Amino acid sequence: MKELFKAITIKEARETIGKYFSPPRTGEKVPLLSALHRCLLHDVAAADDVPGFDRSTMDGFAVRAKDTFGASEGLPAYLEVAGEVFMGEKPAGELKAGQAWRISTGGMLPPGADAVVMVEYTEELDENTIGVVRPVAPGENVIRRNEDFSAGDLILPAGHRLRPQDLGILAAAGITTVEVRTPLRVGIISTGDEVVPPEEKPGPGQVRDINSFTLYGAVRECGGEPRLYGIVGDNFRQLKERLAGALAENDLVLLSGGSSVGARDVAAAVIDALGRPGVLFHGVSLKPGKPTIGAAIEGKPVFGLPGHPASALVVFELLVAPLIRFGGYPREPFWEFPVRARLTRNLRSAAGREDYVRVKLALRNGELYADPVLGKSGLIATLVKADGLAKIPAGKEGVEAGEWVAVKLF
Amino acid sequence: MKELFKAITIKEARETIGKYFSPPRTGEKVPLLSALHRCLLHDVAAADDVPGFDRSTMDGFAVRAKDTFGASEGLPAYLEVAGEVFMGEKPAGELKAGQAWRISTGGMLPPGADAVVMVEYTEELDENTIGVVRPVAPGENVIRRNEDFSAGDLILPAGHRLRPQDLGILAAAGITTVEVRTPLRVGIISTGDEVVPPEEKPGPGQVRDINSFTLYGAVRECGGEPRLYGIVGDNFRQLKERLAGALAENDLVLLSGGSSVGARDVAAAVIDALGRPGVLFHGVSLKPGKPTIGAAIEGKPVFGLPGHPASALVVFELLVAPLIRFGGYPREPFWEFPVRARLTRNLRSAAGREDYVRVKLALRNGELYADPVLGKSGLIATLVKADGLAKIPAGKEGVEAGEWVAVKLF
Repeated sequence: MKELFKAITIKEARETIGKYFSPPRTGEKVPLLSALHRCLLHDVAAADDVPGFDRSTMDGFAVRAKDTFGASEGLPAYLEVAGEVFMGEKPAGELKAGQAWRISTGGMLPPGADAVVMVEYTEELDENTIGVVRPVAPGENVIRRNEDFSAGDLILPAGHRLRPQDLGILAAAGITTVEVRTPLRVGIISTGDEVVPPEEKPGPGQVRDINSFTLYGAVRECGGEPRLYGIVGDNFRQLKERLAGALAENDLVLLSGGSSVGARDVAAAVIDALGRPGVLFHGVSLKPGKPTIGAAIEGKPVFGLPGHPASALVVFELLVAPLIRFGGYPREPFWEFPVRARLTRNLRSAAGREDYVRVKLALRNGELYADPVLGKSGLIATLVKADGLAKIPAGKEGVEAGEWVAVKLF
Repeated sequence: MKELFKAITIKEARETIGKYFSPPRTGEKVPLLSALHRCLLHDVAAADDVPGFDRSTMDGFAVRAKDTFGASEGLPAYLEVAGEVFMGEKPAGELKAGQAWRISTGGMLPPGADAVVMVEYTEELDENTIGVVRPVAPGENVIRRNEDFSAGDLILPAGHRLRPQDLGILAAAGITTVEVRTPLRVGIISTGDEVVPPEEKPGPGQVRDINSFTLYGAVRECGGEPRLYGIVGDNFRQLKERLAGALAENDLVLLSGGSSVGARDVAAAVIDALGRPGVLFHGVSLKPGKPTIGAAIEGKPVFGLPGHPASALVVFELLVAPLIRFGGYPREPFWEFPVRARLTRNLRSAAGREDYVRVKLALRNGELYADPVLGKSGLIATLVKADGLAKIPAGKEGVEAGEWVAVKLF
């Protein structure tokens, strides 16, 4: 029956897999400093106002703005220096009409003050008097209480992947332990009678396992927890045993290799034998990466990735990475190919098929150019030479030199 | 004398710091699976040819290309099926003129064969004869011996940061342990009488420490080894002791906070008291981030970053991140701002000053737009709302809505 499967589009493949995937909803508590790049399990709200008071953003004098209205070089506004704000302390009194208090960047405005005059726009007449030579508006050079966020505000949503500044806002909110999602566990199995582990010297007809290592790194980079299950020959019984083991211990399993028809048939038969619904599609309109199997076994996605290293990584990026990184396929696809560059040569493509071309980037005269790295998808060196993948959409029969393409950086 | 320092450009700041920085040349051996995102200590060369033999990239028949010349649907080339290649094995003989051997993707070509005919372009006449209906050129559907790389080839250069595919090529070359650079050790000190740790509830005039956490995450993201040295008040003796301790244990030290003139004077005086050459510049033509101190003490760079969280992170990205990530400032600056987007509103800027604007990105009608996130640089929430930083070069007095800007994604 497998012969009935037709190559489907990337979009269809994502919709199909999406139906059988739900990210694990378990979490763990980690200290804030260990939470970088982890995804929040829950929404996080602020408990207090930040800052908790009006703060100066400049060195100068806290004032009532209206006392400075009309001030100029020729006609300064004269104010009495009635106090000084010390850093980290509550001002010792209230600012009254006609007064100015010395204040430093970050200092708390005294009650009664509503603006800060930069020291550069004042002249000291004597110890107790300054002339202000430029007016300030209410709120000028001030961060108001709550201006960063207020008690009760949602500061970060569930699922958000924590960047350095997100650790900063959590610290600002007084949150030193965060509950983050358990990483997705991903089992990786290499298949093929010709594949040997990297520590062995390959005999005639043999090649070292590449995909286990590329995929291990790619899963890790996405924030997943990879686990290697070694190499299995194109043997139904052995592969079934190994895949069953990997499924029991992981949320998602990647098979790679076995791009020949015979090997793919073994992988598909093993998947179908292990549970429902089994193989969902077998072939994607994609280059490189056409001989891809998408499957699900009792709620866990299983991918049969092509054996060619470049093909396996392209399919991983398109179909697997978003599940690990975002817990699903993103609605904002530009995130995946955010860089725009001009292609340096004509490239043909078949209409109806998405092509992903390895490219090397270079900046010339202020514009970014993408130079295709030529070479077969079976060559790992082409991936190593490339800086990214350029996308040629399914609607096009090719791209001409000079046209803009969307690029995902490696 | 400090008053003599003038604001310098980012380029000058980089050149100045670059003179006093050399990345540590020590390394450690790690297993290949632990080497992701680490930087190679030495060049890595291949010991063998990969692949070690000519391999098929298709399922079909190994042939001598010239036996297929002129073949067509109407006039197939008839060949004798004389053998079969088994995966991972050496073919049991030689292919002679007029013969075809069955072969699968990844199989080793028998001696005498120089191309593979895809099974789709053959018809089986009987068990021992096929008709080839399309000619193949020599080398077609074949990865040649050495085509990935040859023994002795440099496969990855010293300093290269290992991506998933780089783990793959190392595995292909049989390298299972790699020597990587020791990560740069970065000490982080927050300063300011008003700063309290995040686990404390700030009193009036006090704020929680944000920069220690943002910078910790940013150092980690660059591959450095951050170490926090807590919060020090604006006190010469305490800061001197803390900075001396951090210098002894790290390759580079970041102070943050103390944006007021008084606090900056303390930081500069402490730096100058600890060794030579001391403060190198004090003020960079940059917004946000002007009140930045660049210094070196006995060969170790020290940065006095502004206290405002957005300013501190912008200066970190421009002046500190490349040292940690690349061991120096890159010659190819586009890597730092690889995304191009159209600004959604006019922004003013001062000529001679580089401006970095926090932006939120959105795709509309296939084009990427950058919407400035407005708000003071003292607000951590502006950094959290942003997807990246847009650069407004020093030569411009502003950018108009619709113009393209270069963006670095967070």
